[in-house]
Amino acid sequence: MYDLIIIGSGPGGYEAIMTALRLKLNIAVIEKDKLGGNCLNRACIPTKYYRAGSHFIEKVKKAEKYGLNLEIRSISFKEAKLHKDQAIGFLRKSLSQLLKAKKTPVYRGIGKIIGKNRIEITKEDGSKEIIEGKYILIATGSVPTSVGGINPDGEYIITTEDFMEKLEEIPETLCVIGGGVAGCEIGYIASSYGSKVTIVEIKDRLIPISSISLEVSRNLQRIMKKKGVDLRLNRYVKKYSIQDGKVRLVLSDETEITVDKVLLSVGRRPNTSNIDEIGIEKDERGFIKVNDYLQTNFENIYACGDVVNSPMLAHIASYEARTAIKNMFMDKKEKRDYSVVPWAIFTAFEIAHVGLTEDEAKEKKIQIISGYYPYTYNEKAVDELESEGFVRLVFDKDSKKILGATVVGIEASEIIHLMAYALKNGMTAEEIHNFIYFHPSLSEIFLFATYDVVLGRLF
Amino acid sequence: MYDLIIIGSGPGGYEAIMTALRLKLNIAVIEKDKLGGNCLNRACIPTKYYRAGSHFIEKVKKAEKYGLNLEIRSISFKEAKLHKDQAIGFLRKSLSQLLKAKKTPVYRGIGKIIGKNRIEITKEDGSKEIIEGKYILIATGSVPTSVGGINPDGEYIITTEDFMEKLEEIPETLCVIGGGVAGCEIGYIASSYGSKVTIVEIKDRLIPISSISLEVSRNLQRIMKKKGVDLRLNRYVKKYSIQDGKVRLVLSDETEITVDKVLLSVGRRPNTSNIDEIGIEKDERGFIKVNDYLQTNFENIYACGDVVNSPMLAHIASYEARTAIKNMFMDKKEKRDYSVVPWAIFTAFEIAHVGLTEDEAKEKKIQIISGYYPYTYNEKAVDELESEGFVRLVFDKDSKKILGATVVGIEASEIIHLMAYALKNGMTAEEIHNFIYFHPSLSEIFLFATYDVVLGRLF
Repeated sequence: MYDLIIIGSGPGGYEAIMTALRLKLNIAVIEKDKLGGNCLNRACIPTKYYRAGSHFIEKVKKAEKYGLNLEIRSISFKEAKLHKDQAIGFLRKSLSQLLKAKKTPVYRGIGKIIGKNRIEITKEDGSKEIIEGKYILIATGSVPTSVGGINPDGEYIITTEDFMEKLEEIPETLCVIGGGVAGCEIGYIASSYGSKVTIVEIKDRLIPISSISLEVSRNLQRIMKKKGVDLRLNRYVKKYSIQDGKVRLVLSDETEITVDKVLLSVGRRPNTSNIDEIGIEKDERGFIKVNDYLQTNFENIYACGDVVNSPMLAHIASYEARTAIKNMFMDKKEKRDYSVVPWAIFTAFEIAHVGLTEDEAKEKKIQIISGYYPYTYNEKAVDELESEGFVRLVFDKDSKKILGATVVGIEASEIIHLMAYALKNGMTAEEIHNFIYFHPSLSEIFLFATYDVVLGRLF
Repeated sequence: MYDLIIIGSGPGGYEAIMTALRLKLNIAVIEKDKLGGNCLNRACIPTKYYRAGSHFIEKVKKAEKYGLNLEIRSISFKEAKLHKDQAIGFLRKSLSQLLKAKKTPVYRGIGKIIGKNRIEITKEDGSKEIIEGKYILIATGSVPTSVGGINPDGEYIITTEDFMEKLEEIPETLCVIGGGVAGCEIGYIASSYGSKVTIVEIKDRLIPISSISLEVSRNLQRIMKKKGVDLRLNRYVKKYSIQDGKVRLVLSDETEITVDKVLLSVGRRPNTSNIDEIGIEKDERGFIKVNDYLQTNFENIYACGDVVNSPMLAHIASYEARTAIKNMFMDKKEKRDYSVVPWAIFTAFEIAHVGLTEDEAKEKKIQIISGYYPYTYNEKAVDELESEGFVRLVFDKDSKKILGATVVGIEASEIIHLMAYALKNGMTAEEIHNFIYFHPSLSEIFLFATYDVVLGRLF
């Protein structure tokens, strides 16, 4: 009997493996597809690869600023995919080699929990094998959802996973259904690699979620339009048909769009429909019910990541996995805590956020004061030719403790961690202001964004 | 009488202006040259501009990884300089416009303190003007030093300032005397823009200072050699001569080098030789003596930045300026505190450091435990094609509190701030490890670099 069986090797499973191996546990991994799961193979990592490429394409257009006379002979998505596959192959191999070095078995197939300690694995050839574990971690992630009868076929109607893993050529025209995080990320990438992109979003703005302020959405919309992306807000797809190798869409305002491909990006649902036959409790949407320690209704079975009803983010999955493993095997039990979760979006801008927005704080009836500073005057941003963007910090009006931060601009996804640490340590505007930041750095922006709050306004 | 007269508008003066204007003070600025001082016009900011260009040149060579087929038609330092001047011109203008909007007078000339509250300004045309201030801040910075009778002539023997402000064409061959921070930064830039570079360093390694570990120097030496830079360690220049438009150098080991230009980069000294005639106390090296509040022996005269004997860093100057102004005009007095000063070097690698190195901790007889993680397996670094580098964290062995951090690799100068915040807040390895970092980010490296310390080693 293994100490622990981990079902799924995505960001949750991966981190569980790392943690468990350091605790010298005897573990087994079940994976139905490629090691690394969606995150590595068809979500976060390929997205950021293509995003880095897209951003590089923009930079190349400014090459003369650094004294380079460049000719762009061609931009090939196919070539980019080849190298993307190599990069991901390297990362997957490093995981696979670690597991081999540690003699950790990887069972290839679909795992179903058939007893408190028993898992039946159905392999690709249909054969079955049963393994046993003292503890089980369910980390099977999520799958894309559909909407309004639009059914992905892998050819004309594709999912984000199809785009990231399989797409060989960028379509001439692409309609993205859903202007949320993934829709904006892929819309930007497709546009950079030469697609004429339309984004259809049912709400009145891009990324219409509460932690993205109107200020951010508006900035994003402005720059997406500047890139030539056609935004169709307040609209949805009423019907569609496939004719002569094209998709013809009719929108709710009766306008029509004809494109080569449609990318469906309207959300994900937990991948739990066939996970057990022992009665692990799930909610009405299929999320596995867990307590504060990530434990299911079976005390030795834990769950983490997208199968649990917490934010569907890779790093939440990793965090939950670490916490679950520690709760299984270490004396000190830790409650899961989502009070400080930085996150980021890689689209035309890099957008990052942690804590409360101004509106969220107001809804909670907290009196706030906010600080703002544009990238425009940050010397490093100017040197990097990346001076579009801004920082918005939200403080409690009385205590001046930081409540939240939004960063829009280059390296937002890194420097946001500084405000996340500030939030975690209960730092005040004055403490953030009095700190010594390296000059020139982007991180200095926080010094400037606290000037108003600490010393008063310039104008 | 002004509330405050600021002599010098470099990083110290600039920050003093920002702070003073927010406090609604009636100030005047004296500047003998361009607004923004050395940092903006001939040090930090142009260095980072050219460094961004150099790094971009490297990236362009990897363009096929993102599917771009590029032809480099030419690389022109002259063209880069033109745009560098524009970028810096924009930043200088923004400061100038702010001062105009605030009706803050800028006296152009050299200021000499001739009375406790009186400054005589000698203008370029030789005319003089006297102004009076309740408080005075000396922020006149530093000037390059010379060594071994090698005298900069602006033509064959140039200073770092000549390189950054005036140099129009990159020399075919360049000998950098001094393998410290500036020498390595400029050596890298010159090499990237096409110069054949030799670095002569008297000590046995590049950047031979205690906060740069041997591990970092060795990595830097390896990559500089790979770039074709000729390193001559343990050597100094014995004599030199200028013949037929070339500089002929004889080194201490009797080897000879003939180059088009020599860059002298052997340090700086405080620019205080003619600052006053009222007896402001200075030490034997010319540094102005100040107390913990940045006050000189005259209670209304303060000093900050390179004129004070603290680390010669732009952000130290800014910090001291902020502190000095607050100590002049606000009730709460603040002692200067250099306990947490992150800093970075932009050469072939980005190198950043805060706190103690392993060796420094050992010298202080502190029992340590350290954490290490390479960039190799960081998914974002892989996506960005920047997977060379590593993180080294130093912890107190008992308390597991962080004592220091070194980061070598892409965005080191940003993510180091996270460890600086950790140091400031007394965070332990476990607190750093248990934090939720965005995935994929470079900042996650700190999670991985604490695994060994928190949970035990993998192998």
